[in-house]
Amino acid sequence: MSLSIVLLAGGVGGAKMAEGLMHSRCGEGLSIIGNIGDDQEIHGLWVSPDIDTLTYTLTERIDRTKGWGLKDESNHTLDALALLGVDTWMYLGDQDFATHIYRTEQRKKGLRPSVIAADIAAKFGLKVPLLLATDDNVPTRLNTDRGWLDFQSYFVRYQCQPEITAVEFQGAEQANATPETLAAIAAADLIIFAPSNPIVSIGAILAIPGIRSAIDNSSAFKMAVSPIIAGKTVKGPADKMLRSLGFSSDALGVAQCYQSLLDLLVIDSADQQYCDAIRALGMQVACTDTLMPERGDKVRLAEELLDYYQQQNPGNGLPQEISSINSVATKQVSR
Amino acid sequence: MSLSIVLLAGGVGGAKMAEGLMHSRCGEGLSIIGNIGDDQEIHGLWVSPDIDTLTYTLTERIDRTKGWGLKDESNHTLDALALLGVDTWMYLGDQDFATHIYRTEQRKKGLRPSVIAADIAAKFGLKVPLLLATDDNVPTRLNTDRGWLDFQSYFVRYQCQPEITAVEFQGAEQANATPETLAAIAAADLIIFAPSNPIVSIGAILAIPGIRSAIDNSSAFKMAVSPIIAGKTVKGPADKMLRSLGFSSDALGVAQCYQSLLDLLVIDSADQQYCDAIRALGMQVACTDTLMPERGDKVRLAEELLDYYQQQNPGNGLPQEISSINSVATKQVSR
Repeated sequence: MSLSIVLLAGGVGGAKMAEGLMHSRCGEGLSIIGNIGDDQEIHGLWVSPDIDTLTYTLTERIDRTKGWGLKDESNHTLDALALLGVDTWMYLGDQDFATHIYRTEQRKKGLRPSVIAADIAAKFGLKVPLLLATDDNVPTRLNTDRGWLDFQSYFVRYQCQPEITAVEFQGAEQANATPETLAAIAAADLIIFAPSNPIVSIGAILAIPGIRSAIDNSSAFKMAVSPIIAGKTVKGPADKMLRSLGFSSDALGVAQCYQSLLDLLVIDSADQQYCDAIRALGMQVACTDTLMPERGDKVRLAEELLDYYQQQNPGNGLPQEISSINSVATKQVSR
Repeated sequence: MSLSIVLLAGGVGGAKMAEGLMHSRCGEGLSIIGNIGDDQEIHGLWVSPDIDTLTYTLTERIDRTKGWGLKDESNHTLDALALLGVDTWMYLGDQDFATHIYRTEQRKKGLRPSVIAADIAAKFGLKVPLLLATDDNVPTRLNTDRGWLDFQSYFVRYQCQPEITAVEFQGAEQANATPETLAAIAAADLIIFAPSNPIVSIGAILAIPGIRSAIDNSSAFKMAVSPIIAGKTVKGPADKMLRSLGFSSDALGVAQCYQSLLDLLVIDSADQQYCDAIRALGMQVACTDTLMPERGDKVRLAEELLDYYQQQNPGNGLPQEISSINSVATKQVSR
């Protein structure tokens, strides 16, 4: 019997966690819900950075050095666009352009964005279901000291420099969750929030009312991995963003974001001092090494998440080859 | 005083003639009307092969070996599209994709196609006005033994193999000529039809009623260069197409296509035997070498066209450094 796992994933942290889970003992039961909040039309083409990062990572096509984009890329198209006077602040490689051209054409044909994402993933050879929270456009908008910005302008163009005062997921209230996502959540034994930005990655997914209530109503075990280690993100602006929006920029701030949603928050061993405060918010805590520089680290962390699940849900039929990991005392869930 | 010249140009022959005229003694007075009949949406992008061939040729960016496309091209985007299952029968290079992406985005913004073409040409550094006959879509459609085909399918995909029974310029009757084109024709002293396909290149331009009547009503001297040499085209399917549509596939067939439009038809020295028959159609004939493999040949032919014009219009103030060319007896216009 396999475990049904739903991973909410955004950004590079989401892709790493997805990779770990895909290659874990429960990889076959994995479904991934990706973030489309940072989707954007660039040069008239529909770019979907988080979804592409997942597809490229999970099919070994990712540029491992950057953590995004395709490996062995060139940028002849972008250079030629620059010669046409176009502002090319967003790096798009020649092969990557094909993905955007294809996606844009399929959207123009009227196909659902989630069907297109699944089609592209399949063409790349991905076997794990890659789901979109919604087929509606729900762009993340950030109010900053430079005015309202779309996500890529904030993230890429201005390198996360602007001070954020508010985050909006435009149209989220009216957006419908995709049936595939709702079905996956309904079938889930375990829901995992990847170590992604809790506000603009996981938050953009949870902003879809149908997703939020499906997770609220799910009897699945729910855990998150903190993207903050010793007060800093591995990548991206989560720490700065937490601070700007009134959360503490540490594991506790992450716990506050997810309050009333989680059974368990997994934090880095460097953040043990927050355990009591997090437990006080009504969730369990587990400490382990959450950095995932290499494939081995990703799978190890994924296996540990499965261990935590099994400890909390001993009746559920997980495959058994996990005793060696379970025996590591520091990896146990603390109450 | 400069001469105002309007060149109707399509395909590689049109680009060669444009290059010759641009570098001739009257290059400053040149305007070019390009053919948009073979424009087509490919992978959701608006591709305008004839216009791009003109822009790329006249700005030294053309792939001289192929006669179309950009030099130093790569095809990473196209290869990646093929991996996505897309049928990539139309070669589009990485740099070339930028042109199509940019054009498509500008069209989406609502800009007139002729404004976009001029903008792209200017960005490439072209000084000569490159005009579109119309801002409307007037796709060339070919009825063949494989059914109705768009031009690129016939030309590129099926390599001009299908037998053509009819040619249609869809929507031409309702299409409006651009004001820039009408102004250029109204101001022209000399109108030249390039050695392009008389049916689908020049024919697609003349199919716009406003263009046709402006040329009919113009007092400019009108000449064409035959694209057929010794019964064959240098490039493209003009010979085959002439035959299929009931014309003879030689200089006389070209003259028939242009009957009542021309003052002078320039044919290749290899086709002198058609002179009498062509004159019988009510136009003058000049014989010369019309092959233009190199820049020097293009300029030489252009200068000869200007000579013919000056012989026929001795009052018009052409620059004077042409006596050496005029002295070549075989290059004189025969009546």
